[in-house]
Parts: sequence; structure tokens; C-alpha cells
Amino acid sequence: MKKSFGSRPFIIPTPVWCVGSYDTNNKPNVMTIAWGGICCSKPPCVTISLRKATYTYGNIMKRQAYTLSVPSEKYVVEADYFGMASGRDVDKFKKTDLTPIKSELVDAPYVGEFPMILECKVIYHHEIGSHTHFIGEILDVKIEEDMLANEGKADMGKISPLIFDPGVGRYHGIGNFVGKAFDIGRKYPLKSE
Amino acid sequence: MKKSFGSRPFIIPTPVWCVGSYDTNNKPNVMTIAWGGICCSKPPCVTISLRKATYTYGNIMKRQAYTLSVPSEKYVVEADYFGMASGRDVDKFKKTDLTPIKSELVDAPYVGEFPMILECKVIYHHEIGSHTHFIGEILDVKIEEDMLANEGKADMGKISPLIFDPGVGRYHGIGNFVGKAFDIGRKYPLKSE
Repeated sequence: MKKSFGSRPFIIPTPVWCVGSYDTNNKPNVMTIAWGGICCSKPPCVTISLRKATYTYGNIMKRQAYTLSVPSEKYVVEADYFGMASGRDVDKFKKTDLTPIKSELVDAPYVGEFPMILECKVIYHHEIGSHTHFIGEILDVKIEEDMLANEGKADMGKISPLIFDPGVGRYHGIGNFVGKAFDIGRKYPLKSE
Repeated sequence: MKKSFGSRPFIIPTPVWCVGSYDTNNKPNVMTIAWGGICCSKPPCVTISLRKATYTYGNIMKRQAYTLSVPSEKYVVEADYFGMASGRDVDKFKKTDLTPIKSELVDAPYVGEFPMILECKVIYHHEIGSHTHFIGEILDVKIEEDMLANEGKADMGKISPLIFDPGVGRYHGIGNFVGKAFDIGRKYPLKSE
């Protein structure tokens, strides 16, 4: 038996990504979001959704650019803080002693200490209701070299990103490897006999 | 030092959600995606992005509805299969012996055995490039009763959803609880002194 929870913005997993932007005084800001996801492969695009009241919303509308910095598990306190404080009230980079790095590709900063970075140019935005939905073209993906697997590929286990559970408001880490994609499903027939 | 991977649709974590739809003969179909995310709180909306070549794309364009069924870890083989086979070629519910349940709210089926279900009405779609981006309003969230925590809330640890790593094409489970959101970040000041 399933229990109905009604019309709610609730699904799992959701990501924990820190959105980097500059304000009108070129002050770097960073804000954590869980409302987002990849939305296209060619061109590669990722969405984020923001309330208009956020400082980041105004920054991105002006600069038409943002970065996503993926925190590893050890930065869970800083990631949570970036989602609570506003750049209007406080310099979040200074308070946490983390380093804003200016992107060479888009007009936005990223968090130097975080292991994975996406640099995005806004190609579209759309107001839905409480949130404005931004679609950003991913111009580059950068990953810390010591978090790559032997063959030079990214290793999620080493990057150890966070997962957000919006139901109870909790962060989890990444769990064990449970299967190879586009592979284990071959147990079942791809065509009818 | 960070290594550049170029312009790629790559970030972690991404979800593993199974999209339910009906074809023109009312045959239920289900397809696994990782390109999606929550995009609005009011109204609650979730996006999915599909290539036009998929069977699910045509189904959703006609019915303007879809469900998302969240597989638990024990259904990783079926979830992978749903992302490999096409509903044009095979009845994926029959082959896996899983049960299509007709939603009472939208014109789409969901996977009865999966622990968490969202029923969505398409309110908007937009072509980006390789993918069409659908925004669905979430009309209900249903969760298996024995996967709720004591206080009746959903428990991500019990639902045990999958996480997809698009870099290497691997599924992982959910890891340990690492912190309470909107709480642990209070270590740092929310306002300037």
C-alpha cells in the first residue's frame, strides 16, 4: 500500500550544487541549490531554478552566466551554509575562507576547493511560478586531478558528492557501486522473440 | 590542479527515474532517465528531457502526462533494462514481470512494485537541441507505507533510490547520513557583525 503525500516538490535523489555568480560590485557569491538537473546532451545543458528573491537570481539575470561547484562530503557544513545565508547580508566566501576563482570562460566565479566545476552560459530562462528556471550551456567541466580514476575518468566515489533528501531535509553521501549501466539490464531481451 | 573535460553533459549526482506513459494502443511503457530534476516549488514541478527518437517522447506528446517511478536498489537490473530497450520493440512490463498501474490522476501508468511514484501533468515543453525538455506539474507523490520513518515521513534510507554517474556509466546506492540541512551551516554567521 502506498500513502499519498499530495502535490509536493518531492523526489529523491536531488543534487547539492553550489551556484557561483558575481553581483554588480563584482563581489563573488555562492548559493546552494537542489532544484536542477541535466536537460540536454547536445548542446550540453544543465538547469537550475531560483526564487526571484535570491541574490543569485539578480546576479545571473545581469551576467547571464553561472558556475556549479560540486561540494564533496567534507564540505557539507559549508554547502549547507551557502543555502542559508544571503549574499546580500554576508560575504559567504570570506566567512568560510573558501576561494572564489574567476572563470576564464563565463562571467562567474567558482569555489576553488570543491572537486568538480561546471561553467555555464545562460541560453534561456523561463518563469514557472515560485521559481525561475535557467538553462545553462555547459562550456567546460573541470575535475580535481587526484579524484580521477586510473584511466583518467572521473570517479564519483572519489569526488564523493552530496545527495539531498527534500522530504526530511537531510544530506547523505554516495553509497556503494551497485551495477554497470547499459549492461546489467541485458538480463532481459531487448527485442521480442 | 583541475583537469578540463570540455563541454559535456556531466555532473554528479544524477537521478535514476523511470518514466511511465501509454502508447496509442494503451500499451503501458516505461523508460529510465537521468536527465531531470525539480524545477519549481509552487506549483511543484519536475522536468524530464527526452530525445525525439524515444517511444516515450511520442507517448507524452499525445497524452501530455507521465509518471516517475523511483526504483529502489534491488530493482537496478530492471531500471537499467528500462533505459536500454525500446517500447517500440518489446513490452518492458511483461518481460520484467512488473505491474503497470493506471494512475487515477493523469493519463499514464506507473510501476506498482517501485517504492515512490510521482504523477505529472505536462504544463510546458521546449526543444533545446538533442533533447526536448518537459515540465510536469506534480499532482501527487505516493510512497510505500513500509518505507516511511516513524513520524510518517519518507525515509530515503528505506526507499534506497539509485544514483547515476554519467561519467563512467555506473549506478550507486545512497550512502550514509552526513548532516541535517538548514541546520549544520549555522556554524557560520548568517549576517555580518
